Amino acid sequence: MPKSSFQEIILKLQDFWASHGCLITQPYYTQVGAGTMNPATFLRVLGPEPWNVAYVEPSVRPDDGRYGENPNRFQLHTQYQVILKPDPGNPQELYLESLKALGIDPRQHDIRFVEDNWEQPAISAWGLGWEVWLDGQEITQFTYFQQMGGVALDPVSVEITYGLERILIALNNAKAIWNEEYGAGVTYGEIRRQEEFEHSKYYFETADVERVRAMYDLFSAEADACLAQGLIVPAHDYVLKCSHCFNILDTRGAISVAERQAFFRRIRELAKGVAVSYGEQRKGLEYPLLKDEGKRMNALREAKSSAPLKFIPHPSSFILEIGVEELPASDVDTAYAAVSTRVQTLLKELNLTHGDIRFFTTPRRIVVSIDSLSPNQPDREDLVKGPPADKAFDKDGKPTQAALGFAKKNNLDPATLEAREIDGGKYVAAVVKQKGRPTPEVLVDALPKLVESIKFEKSMRWNDSGIAFSRPIRWYVALLGDMVIPFEYAGVTSGNVTRGLRPYGSPDITIPSADKYFDVIREAGILLDKEERKASIVEQVKQAADVMGGEAIIEEGLLNEVVNLIEMPTAVMGGFNEEFLALPRDVLISVMKKHQRYFPVQKDGKLLAHFIAIRNGDDIHVDTVRQGNEHVLGARFADANFFVREDVKLKLEEYRPKLSSLTFHTKLGSMLDKSDRMLKLGAEIGALLGFKGVDMIKPLGRAVYLAKADLATQMVTEMTSLQGIIGGEYALRSGEDAEVAKAISEQYQTVPQSKVGVAVALTDRIDSLVGLFAAGLAPTGAKDPFGLRRAAIGVVQPLIEHDMNFDLAEAVKRSAKTQPIPVSEEAQKQILEFIAGRLKVVLGDMGFKHGVIEAVLAAQSNNPAGTVRAVKQLSAWVDREDWASTLDGFARCVRIIRSAGASEQRLEISEKLFEAEEEKNLYKALKLQPSTFNNVNDLLTTVANLIPAITAFFDKVMVMVEDEKVKQNRLALVGQVAGLTKGIADLSKLEGF
Amino acid sequence: MPKSSFQEIILKLQDFWASHGCLITQPYYTQVGAGTMNPATFLRVLGPEPWNVAYVEPSVRPDDGRYGENPNRFQLHTQYQVILKPDPGNPQELYLESLKALGIDPRQHDIRFVEDNWEQPAISAWGLGWEVWLDGQEITQFTYFQQMGGVALDPVSVEITYGLERILIALNNAKAIWNEEYGAGVTYGEIRRQEEFEHSKYYFETADVERVRAMYDLFSAEADACLAQGLIVPAHDYVLKCSHCFNILDTRGAISVAERQAFFRRIRELAKGVAVSYGEQRKGLEYPLLKDEGKRMNALREAKSSAPLKFIPHPSSFILEIGVEELPASDVDTAYAAVSTRVQTLLKELNLTHGDIRFFTTPRRIVVSIDSLSPNQPDREDLVKGPPADKAFDKDGKPTQAALGFAKKNNLDPATLEAREIDGGKYVAAVVKQKGRPTPEVLVDALPKLVESIKFEKSMRWNDSGIAFSRPIRWYVALLGDMVIPFEYAGVTSGNVTRGLRPYGSPDITIPSADKYFDVIREAGILLDKEERKASIVEQVKQAADVMGGEAIIEEGLLNEVVNLIEMPTAVMGGFNEEFLALPRDVLISVMKKHQRYFPVQKDGKLLAHFIAIRNGDDIHVDTVRQGNEHVLGARFADANFFVREDVKLKLEEYRPKLSSLTFHTKLGSMLDKSDRMLKLGAEIGALLGFKGVDMIKPLGRAVYLAKADLATQMVTEMTSLQGIIGGEYALRSGEDAEVAKAISEQYQTVPQSKVGVAVALTDRIDSLVGLFAAGLAPTGAKDPFGLRRAAIGVVQPLIEHDMNFDLAEAVKRSAKTQPIPVSEEAQKQILEFIAGRLKVVLGDMGFKHGVIEAVLAAQSNNPAGTVRAVKQLSAWVDREDWASTLDGFARCVRIIRSAGASEQRLEISEKLFEAEEEKNLYKALKLQPSTFNNVNDLLTTVANLIPAITAFFDKVMVMVEDEKVKQNRLALVGQVAGLTKGIADLSKLEGF
Repeated sequence: MPKSSFQEIILKLQDFWASHGCLITQPYYTQVGAGTMNPATFLRVLGPEPWNVAYVEPSVRPDDGRYGENPNRFQLHTQYQVILKPDPGNPQELYLESLKALGIDPRQHDIRFVEDNWEQPAISAWGLGWEVWLDGQEITQFTYFQQMGGVALDPVSVEITYGLERILIALNNAKAIWNEEYGAGVTYGEIRRQEEFEHSKYYFETADVERVRAMYDLFSAEADACLAQGLIVPAHDYVLKCSHCFNILDTRGAISVAERQAFFRRIRELAKGVAVSYGEQRKGLEYPLLKDEGKRMNALREAKSSAPLKFIPHPSSFILEIGVEELPASDVDTAYAAVSTRVQTLLKELNLTHGDIRFFTTPRRIVVSIDSLSPNQPDREDLVKGPPADKAFDKDGKPTQAALGFAKKNNLDPATLEAREIDGGKYVAAVVKQKGRPTPEVLVDALPKLVESIKFEKSMRWNDSGIAFSRPIRWYVALLGDMVIPFEYAGVTSGNVTRGLRPYGSPDITIPSADKYFDVIREAGILLDKEERKASIVEQVKQAADVMGGEAIIEEGLLNEVVNLIEMPTAVMGGFNEEFLALPRDVLISVMKKHQRYFPVQKDGKLLAHFIAIRNGDDIHVDTVRQGNEHVLGARFADANFFVREDVKLKLEEYRPKLSSLTFHTKLGSMLDKSDRMLKLGAEIGALLGFKGVDMIKPLGRAVYLAKADLATQMVTEMTSLQGIIGGEYALRSGEDAEVAKAISEQYQTVPQSKVGVAVALTDRIDSLVGLFAAGLAPTGAKDPFGLRRAAIGVVQPLIEHDMNFDLAEAVKRSAKTQPIPVSEEAQKQILEFIAGRLKVVLGDMGFKHGVIEAVLAAQSNNPAGTVRAVKQLSAWVDREDWASTLDGFARCVRIIRSAGASEQRLEISEKLFEAEEEKNLYKALKLQPSTFNNVNDLLTTVANLIPAITAFFDKVMVMVEDEKVKQNRLALVGQVAGLTKGIADLSKLEGF
Repeated sequence: MPKSSFQEIILKLQDFWASHGCLITQPYYTQVGAGTMNPATFLRVLGPEPWNVAYVEPSVRPDDGRYGENPNRFQLHTQYQVILKPDPGNPQELYLESLKALGIDPRQHDIRFVEDNWEQPAISAWGLGWEVWLDGQEITQFTYFQQMGGVALDPVSVEITYGLERILIALNNAKAIWNEEYGAGVTYGEIRRQEEFEHSKYYFETADVERVRAMYDLFSAEADACLAQGLIVPAHDYVLKCSHCFNILDTRGAISVAERQAFFRRIRELAKGVAVSYGEQRKGLEYPLLKDEGKRMNALREAKSSAPLKFIPHPSSFILEIGVEELPASDVDTAYAAVSTRVQTLLKELNLTHGDIRFFTTPRRIVVSIDSLSPNQPDREDLVKGPPADKAFDKDGKPTQAALGFAKKNNLDPATLEAREIDGGKYVAAVVKQKGRPTPEVLVDALPKLVESIKFEKSMRWNDSGIAFSRPIRWYVALLGDMVIPFEYAGVTSGNVTRGLRPYGSPDITIPSADKYFDVIREAGILLDKEERKASIVEQVKQAADVMGGEAIIEEGLLNEVVNLIEMPTAVMGGFNEEFLALPRDVLISVMKKHQRYFPVQKDGKLLAHFIAIRNGDDIHVDTVRQGNEHVLGARFADANFFVREDVKLKLEEYRPKLSSLTFHTKLGSMLDKSDRMLKLGAEIGALLGFKGVDMIKPLGRAVYLAKADLATQMVTEMTSLQGIIGGEYALRSGEDAEVAKAISEQYQTVPQSKVGVAVALTDRIDSLVGLFAAGLAPTGAKDPFGLRRAAIGVVQPLIEHDMNFDLAEAVKRSAKTQPIPVSEEAQKQILEFIAGRLKVVLGDMGFKHGVIEAVLAAQSNNPAGTVRAVKQLSAWVDREDWASTLDGFARCVRIIRSAGASEQRLEISEKLFEAEEEKNLYKALKLQPSTFNNVNDLLTTVANLIPAITAFFDKVMVMVEDEKVKQNRLALVGQVAGLTKGIADLSKLEGF
């Protein structure tokens, strides 16, 4: 194929969208981060008026500047923005057509719609859709806008944002953009590279922070002034200018976390003001662009009512396929769970008999298959209860008004009414015979409700039905035998036509009858069954890794995601430049797995410069796909390289002071303040964990000191998920001890491997818990913005897994002293209770019985490791065959004490008052046993030893006698037994007590 | 023709220019006033690299905002910008092709290239070219850039800037842009009108001056910082932002004249910094886009040397046509003057005999026609003078070294040398015979020099010849008989092909021979002769006015311009909405004449709602042309209407305080300060002019008070030439007296009609003269930036024409007292001398004899009216027949006094010392005459009366006798006669004295 030029792409897209009825407008005249900010999008998607527009938008994102060194990332990239409002019904197909117009044949590539939940909090906007990947490269964002400037959108707009540089790279199979033709024989690099360098330098190094702040303030004030005057577009211009200033400041690293929120709040407020004013303005103008509404809906309704139903005399196969635009991977599973739960009950409710039921979900279809569905409901006789008999007939035995009404309502002859005994009373009743309805009729009503019952965590609207779903529904196949069950839901009517594989152009495929469905689908190359897809992927990935001389790292989470991204998996092997292997392993893996959904390959625990991608489709032109994927991975690694190279110019230690510009929380100071507190607390935590000797104490001190430093590095700023890992990596490169580095890198793991790592993690988490609780930020209900539940689990779990004793109460107390705000006793108690609550959850997750956990936690929770030991031992006792008798014996002691309102305290016992031999024996036995215990075993061994004496005692001795002294003495004896468990476990919480 | 949409125009232009090898880029991401400011122009036109680019540029000009009410004028209009570098040789033709691609057929319209000297001092840039008019509407600016950012351009770039809104209006024959289609069925108004309103309001009313000033300062500081770091594009961005801020401030009326200069200086400095840095950067990069230079030049040289010449045996007609792109009207005349002066001498120098010589110039051709040019120069014999004879031969008579050298140089046999008498000495001489060269050969050398000799006030370069001309030369016809005289100049070679009329597509037309030239040209529809064109225009305009029932206002200046704008004049009648007749007459005329080059039509001194335009071409589709012209005139009037309507919301008086924001001069304060000074001085000027009574004094005071107020109105800001006129108009509308209004409106006329007007004008001018002289700003040499020469003439002339006596010295003295800076005696003297100098010029222009003027001015100049009366009277005396004797008699008195070193003072005369009768008689006669005179007549009557006595005296009496007392007495007597002229005239300056 001849090479394309940048301007050809633009001219072709202009022509394509112009010929598809779009207005072609121009880029905006002030710096914007994306075409979305152009009023042709931001304003025009608001309100009910239709709007179809396409334009180029050179988009400025200062922090993406790479001095012209990265092949894919620039402070200025060129978007081609398309808005279709309302949704034309086939926007994906239109989009794929436009790619063809550019010369991108879907058959020769791997084009993927990858879930993307677009959100722009700064302008209070969100939408759902996809990143479109071309051979692994994101070339387009495709979004159904749901909200803009805080205003819910109705109708929804489809936004298609092409990344033109990436498309050119892909079209020309180039390594980088710079040497590709811009147009007229001039390279893109000639046009833009020097400028890219200059702007990168300006944004990262030169921009004067104070001056840009001052600009921001001026712009913001002008925006207010414009809004006050109802000058919407001028106000919007200044919002954009504010936003650009913010971006510059952010790139200069001049914005603290707390400030960021303030900036966002301010810009969001302005953006909302603009959006709301615009809405009012258009309303005032009576929506000039609004005409010919509702026609399509009517057309749909007609289509629906025109399908006649015929009777089917025998049980038939039924198939329902809900055809959707690409679902997010997790929603593929959600849909599966929803239908598999619902359909069973539904059939019962509908009173339809059936054979096997199966469910399948792929990114593009949700399938319910029912074998031998009965042709109709059985006939039914229902007894319907009417008014009480004494009110149904008058003195003359004639039906009253109430009875007549009941008869009429149930379509009965009043003369046939008679009284019956129902629920112990006399009532008029009627036997109503109901003819079983034919199954097709039943389904016509039931299927829309079935679709409706499928709910997702996040859902979206797309057309004027106003119905929400994970992604737009585009077709239904609904066949009972060979008959279409006609229904309409979400503006889509059912039929017998499905669509084939995306890479084959989603051709329409007619399903002749329900029982042919699976054959047709398989023939179309679609693997409907998730397990089958999974097995195929694993098989192919393993084979591919073999070819590369290594083994694939197949992580279950990734596998589960990938299997839900494709309908026909084909492994694609690729490689990258070996020099990137010098990057931290976690960076490499993170990029491959999280960003690209590749399976990494390793040999002897060392990564190889290879990866395996899974293509949706067959292996035609697989080389193109490989090259594309290699290019994008190379670019991503180059980007990481850029950060690492920049970062390692300083030692890790040198990043620590920079933490002062990151806010931890306004009441609790900066991250540097937190780091300083951790330094104090760390030593105490070490002591509480029993750390001794320089070997433990020194690395702990150093690790705590450096723990948070990596938050100030560019790599972590860019890939937050690598916090700690990067710190550890940089620690090593800065010459720190391996132990220190390990502790740093482990600190965010729930359970660090090393003890020093545990100490660092505990220090961090306890500081957060204590500080944030004291600041009044304890989690409430579902809200846990600071992740304190996770922090508490992260306190408990390492102590348990490492079986380390620890005094939580003391730790909290000491942390309280380091906080910049007072931490009340009450707060400390709350914190400990909160942690205990998490401990309970952890124990539950470990599989212990509820009663056992309750029993131990009632007595002890401040030393989680000890708690677990106790729970384990108690569980073992509870499982013993003789447990019932042991517990029973002990329980009798406790019960009598409790019912007498007596104390389990160790009261004085007078031997003189003993009357029966059995009480003397019990007392003797008791004195032979220890009275304090280290653990549950010791305690219960004692209890068990006492059981014969206890049993004998209760058999022979009456406790609650008249003689008060004797009674009290006996209660004291029994109380001593009952009190043995104190501080170890409360056995009364156990089952069978 | 189907209607066009805005986006179609853009898409068609993109396609057109892309297919002609242009890079297609995008609008800039920050507000610019024009596409020129986009770095794709501003930077890329610098340096030697080729560059061809085209892009849309939405251009923001705040002060063009009209709240969406004007059909043609917007704060944002859309440019389509094309840069061709170097000049492709046919940029006009390419441009006309592009119009055809848009559906504009030149045959159906009047397309005109109207001189435009583009200059942007704020970025130190200039170029020459045209506004392109489509039926009277400017739709494109076409410029050959000569300088950018202070850097001279080599090669020159061609800039073509289309005004897309105007083109759409023209294409659709629309009244306004708003209801035309933008694209996809949406109107332009829907897309932009509300926003246009909002931005207009923002720029005119809302923008906060202090904040925008603060933005400017910040941007300016960032620009410096970027430049210091070599960040060229970021610096340029901030220059643009500065510029936009300046524009906002200007629109808000917040910029004083003095400040404006400072802003310009600052922005210019920055722009220069950017341009220079860019130049260095590209040089450092070794000009990556530079390749394949110089090929074209070589091709041209070859073409030149390949034309053989043949001999013509008889005298033939000769024609030279220099074909150019449209010359400015004044340059058409300049070229005429240049060739008509030069060719005569040239032929003499070349020694070629010839018949009639004629010259013709049109906007596109400069023609020299010579009849019967001799086929060759005559042979010549020249006597060449050698060394002196005594140095040419030695003692033996042999030639010396000197003689031998002379012989060799002149190619002579030394033996033939002989001495001759030359210039009174003896020299060796040689007769050198020179064969006359054939005329073709002579012309080959002479014609380039002839073209070179045509110089213009402003000229430009366009191709790599580096040669400058008024506009690019595109062809030569050079024919002697039927033979082409081959030459090359400015990269163009001569031939026998001319080009036809622009509206016919400038077809190539071959001229078979020189004598056929005029027939061919006439046949092509071209009126070569200016006088013929002029006559045709006058004839057509008169006829057209007749048709309209009025008479055309044919002003000579306009006629002379129009005649030089076309080659084939056709009158086009048009009309405008009668409601516009409510606009001030001067506004209407000014717009029609200055802006549109139309002839206005009036009836009984009142304007009609008609105009007459002159089209270049025939009358095909003249309706389209008329409609276009009507549209543009309507839009211009609407614009004026806008200003007037805005302006008259305030009374004229209310504009006066706003003068405080206009600087008169930094040393002399604001225009309000000046106006306050005028108020004081006005009363005194009135007194000096002898104004008496409330009828004179009151209107004068009011008129002076309001005189400058209109400078603060929008109408005057927009059309400065209407200052005063607008003031008068608004005065009437504000309810001022007619007399006051008249005085205000007349104040800028050299000679106001009304006396009050004269007083106002004098007050203004004297204040300016005194103040600016005191500030050290007297004119020097050719420099007179404040127009003080004109001011001085404006002092003198009205006094003369109204014959009003006035004491200039006193007026200057009183004005001096009102100035904010000291005005020394010396300065006052200088001012009076300066005014006297102008008075002398005025008198000279009135046709008086130099001596007479000198004679009077030597005695009096402070009362110009008196001076003129004196000059007139003296002139009458000088013309009398007996003048010689009168003067002679009087002169004898003066001469003897002067030669005796005696005084002309009135010394005491003693009758006792008289000896001769004649001296007694003279004394007696003298005593009979008055001794002081009101005017020259009185004086000279006296002198004349004395002449007989004087004559007798000198005949008989010897003045210079031995007796000292007698001598002194006689000298006193004669001195008294001589002293009569004191203060009236110095007759010694007269001819014949």
